[in-house]
Amino acid sequence: MTATRQGIVHYRVPYADTDQMGVVYYGNYLTYFERSRNELMRACGLTYKEFEAKKLMLPVVHASIDYKNPARYDDELEIVAELAWLRGVRMQVNCRVTCKEVLLAEGYTIHAIISSETRKPVRLPEDVQDVLTGNG
Amino acid sequence: MTATRQGIVHYRVPYADTDQMGVVYYGNYLTYFERSRNELMRACGLTYKEFEAKKLMLPVVHASIDYKNPARYDDELEIVAELAWLRGVRMQVNCRVTCKEVLLAEGYTIHAIISSETRKPVRLPEDVQDVLTGNG
Amino acid sequence: MTATRQGIVHYRVPYADTDQMGVVYYGNYLTYFERSRNELMRACGLTYKEFEAKKLMLPVVHASIDYKNPARYDDELEIVAELAWLRGVRMQVNCRVTCKEVLLAEGYTIHAIISSETRKPVRLPEDVQDVLTGNG
Amino acid sequence: MTATRQGIVHYRVPYADTDQMGVVYYGNYLTYFERSRNELMRACGLTYKEFEAKKLMLPVVHASIDYKNPARYDDELEIVAELAWLRGVRMQVNCRVTCKEVLLAEGYTIHAIISSETRKPVRLPEDVQDVLTGNG
Repeated sequence: MTATRQGIVHYRVPYADTDQMGVVYYGNYLTYFERSRNELMRACGLTYKEFEAKKLMLPVVHASIDYKNPARYDDELEIVAELAWLRGVRMQVNCRVTCKEVLLAEGYTIHAIISSETRKPVRLPEDVQDVLTGNG
Repeated sequence: MTATRQGIVHYRVPYADTDQMGVVYYGNYLTYFERSRNELMRACGLTYKEFEAKKLMLPVVHASIDYKNPARYDDELEIVAELAWLRGVRMQVNCRVTCKEVLLAEGYTIHAIISSETRKPVRLPEDVQDVLTGNG
Repeated sequence: MTATRQGIVHYRVPYADTDQMGVVYYGNYLTYFERSRNELMRACGLTYKEFEAKKLMLPVVHASIDYKNPARYDDELEIVAELAWLRGVRMQVNCRVTCKEVLLAEGYTIHAIISSETRKPVRLPEDVQDVLTGNG
Repeated sequence: MTATRQGIVHYRVPYADTDQMGVVYYGNYLTYFERSRNELMRACGLTYKEFEAKKLMLPVVHASIDYKNPARYDDELEIVAELAWLRGVRMQVNCRVTCKEVLLAEGYTIHAIISSETRKPVRLPEDVQDVLTGNG
């Protein structure tokens, strides 16, 4: 049995991310989610850059976010990603954003697993699948 | 009976919006959605700026997007927003992004209706509700 | 003699572009500049996409901006680009952003002219140079 | 005599920041600069948030960047800010972005020192000036 792997990012909110309501603009959370997914893959031992070198891509086919509490300028955010499931030619990653243990937003992205050569859906090679699911 | 009001934006994709996969980055669609919502309110005869002057706000509490086909640099996009429903202290706006009548992405945002003074949920004044729902 | 060609963009400022000071975030002006440069090339009769198809690139090597007055949410901006000069393997484009004829920001970008195959500086083919400088 | 204070940010480039040329989009460097300025103020012992609480603002009136080498996806960048000078109602901050000690971009921003109440230029209180210049 293996513990669930997590990708974790700590990030101080810049002015750039805020809007005139004085809070982080809702679209920026998808960038936060991406950054934690990158760290999830690094934590699994296969960076997304290495994944791409294997002629594989993970374009997002669906994204969903619940906004619970606003993030503000200079807040130090923690963004955490976990693999929810990987089945066939699809996978889901769950992400949540907290500040001082208060949940600000949570959601998930569903990714197609694609060959970058054919742009068609492909199953992951077994070794890559094992790396991501932690069946090492 | 009134026809459904739409907010429509035409937008040429800049380099800024693309990523190294050669397509529009998935987070940017939430900005596209916002821009069409702004035009929806303008089409209803009450801009969001005027709405804010009435001490009302519409923060996003949920967002959901399905990505169907990639948008690319220099594509001329059409982004269309429509009110799905307005009930009590919540409303949903549906958005879709097309290029030459090909659907690229569609989704929706759910908004809380909030007083900017108390930051608490409020029902819209009846005249504002009529403006948005087209019961004019 | 030919009139100076211009690239012109009209753009309604979304919430996405503002920050908590209630004005457009200073970094976004470089995206505005890019969008007007794209329209400048289209006005010259050679889009940047077509330019790229000729295995040419125009990466920015220097950018400079003076911020004069803030742009705000829902302002309708006009962004105008003009070729300042094209010499050897470099060119400069001047841009300015106005709202209701008030100057908000002005600046310029200097571009290297590069082969996308060798990534080395190249002189433009004479026909491309004529298109951009208006010596048609 | 005091050593020059620096604001330092380490940052892993996400897909979000890249464009279809496969490099970081030129406008994003202004966000990088901002983030290092925030850390510079924190290193001086007065965060920009605390600075704002004193009814002071530092809007950017000029920005200038030289782009030397491209930053790429998953690069780990170091962004460093230093105060160049503070005189009367203006100050300049120099910033540079490196990856593995290779210089990618350098530039500076000039800021007006403004009262957030009157929106007019003001001199900094002497204690704030000492904090920023390191004459503690």
